[in-house]
Amino acid sequence: MRLGTNLSFSVKRWVEPESWARVIRHDLGLDLAQFSFDIVDPWWPAELRSSVAKRIRKAVDAEGLELHSAFVGLAHYTYNQLLHPLEEGRKASMQWYRNAIDFAGELEVESMGGPAGALSADEAGDPKVAADRYAMLLDSLCELAAHAKRRGLKALLIEPTPLEREFPWTIEGAQQMQRDLAGRTDVPIQWCFDWGHAIYEPLYGAAAADTLSWLKGLGPHIGQVQLQQSDGELDRHWGFTHDDGIVDPARVVAEMHEAGLEDLPVFLEAFFPFEWTNEQVMDDMRRTFAVLKPAFGL
Amino acid sequence: MRLGTNLSFSVKRWVEPESWARVIRHDLGLDLAQFSFDIVDPWWPAELRSSVAKRIRKAVDAEGLELHSAFVGLAHYTYNQLLHPLEEGRKASMQWYRNAIDFAGELEVESMGGPAGALSADEAGDPKVAADRYAMLLDSLCELAAHAKRRGLKALLIEPTPLEREFPWTIEGAQQMQRDLAGRTDVPIQWCFDWGHAIYEPLYGAAAADTLSWLKGLGPHIGQVQLQQSDGELDRHWGFTHDDGIVDPARVVAEMHEAGLEDLPVFLEAFFPFEWTNEQVMDDMRRTFAVLKPAFGL
Repeated sequence: MRLGTNLSFSVKRWVEPESWARVIRHDLGLDLAQFSFDIVDPWWPAELRSSVAKRIRKAVDAEGLELHSAFVGLAHYTYNQLLHPLEEGRKASMQWYRNAIDFAGELEVESMGGPAGALSADEAGDPKVAADRYAMLLDSLCELAAHAKRRGLKALLIEPTPLEREFPWTIEGAQQMQRDLAGRTDVPIQWCFDWGHAIYEPLYGAAAADTLSWLKGLGPHIGQVQLQQSDGELDRHWGFTHDDGIVDPARVVAEMHEAGLEDLPVFLEAFFPFEWTNEQVMDDMRRTFAVLKPAFGL
Repeated sequence: MRLGTNLSFSVKRWVEPESWARVIRHDLGLDLAQFSFDIVDPWWPAELRSSVAKRIRKAVDAEGLELHSAFVGLAHYTYNQLLHPLEEGRKASMQWYRNAIDFAGELEVESMGGPAGALSADEAGDPKVAADRYAMLLDSLCELAAHAKRRGLKALLIEPTPLEREFPWTIEGAQQMQRDLAGRTDVPIQWCFDWGHAIYEPLYGAAAADTLSWLKGLGPHIGQVQLQQSDGELDRHWGFTHDDGIVDPARVVAEMHEAGLEDLPVFLEAFFPFEWTNEQVMDDMRRTFAVLKPAFGL
């Protein structure tokens, strides 16, 4: 199986391309990574972004790392993105995504994406407005898929999240969105399935245990899997170093096989407190992959 | 005393200017607020930013809210900002700050700022490079202070954080930075003192209990205080609803009086899990101010 890491762990620490490439290859012993827009903000002026993209390409090639895709991080997830209640916010978000797609193209990754947006509290309370925003989101995704194709990407990624104000947050919602977008996008819309999101008990209740239904229900439309350790009580994004974590790597591997998805890339997406020392983060990451690698047969 | 809230609590929920102004005035019963760049990203193109700034000014005026200052949120804190190891990153950060100052000017607040930046892991390990970056940071602050003056701001804010890779993180470091900047900036550099940062025990050890020394040591250079509940084991940014919180609002008030800082504005800066419902956040905020207001004599 294919196991790698999102750059979420390296934020504000190993940010030079040569540094994170070195850490992933030599400290963690991995050859697969996913870029995070928490490392370079697509809002940077194009000439600054392009210069860094070239340096990243050189660094990953030098280490023999596969950089698979580029993903929304904590910074852009902080905003309402494509579902912003103000027209100004939606326009800005479209520009951010176009920039991000341009940058992903320069990185020569195969896809980009993330959680797509969140309704505001006021708009989420109005079913008519919420339905309009959903329709707008579909249109935005079609426009962005066309841009992604122009930049040589093979897919756009959307990540279901455990929030009723974000689309989609259920298996049925994701299936509906696939039907609503069928035949309309120049590149496929693929799901990023985050294991820790599906087990968020406060929202999903008893169904939170049933990750296999997500894998089978979204099936061929899943483009990748993100992994975190969690207790299911919050969206923890822990490393696999917590005694109260309920994600069992052996079960992850077994269910991916059962759903016929064992060829998909799997990325750890762990976030650590900013105030932790670099040594704390590195220790947590090393212990995490000491747990994950054997489960994945690596 | 002057008690208000940073918009950190409202991120992705109450983002329309009329919505957060209404919540702060009517649900929380406050008349003082601090804008967060997690609500509007200064990277938005200028015409979109300006349009929203006008709407914000109108909304706060309509509610009789004082919007005191504008502060870096989670989104921009995710990056290395002015201490980025790459020249591209430092240039981008300067542009972000210029945009943020422009926006703060349009909001007609008196100051803007936040944590100023973080060294990368590799650079933090090299004392010579770290010293160079510190000198560059001082130069950047001088340039930004000149821009702040042009836009009508009265001060730039810097927030000490409990990280050795960020400047400053000690009382002595802050005092040194004041001396290093003395006479060089067109508007004063003021400290934002975050109560929860000073009590981070893993870094400060026994001294973590001594918030009064921070207040007295930074004294007249403190421009505002940010408040969070915390157990001192991480930088929690909780509301005042946790049994294991060690910040005592009565002591906050007493120490501010003892240091002669009782006229400074105090802002709650609470962050809640994205996956919480709006009702959970509102309940936590209501209970928080039910605790804080009596302590502040409101």
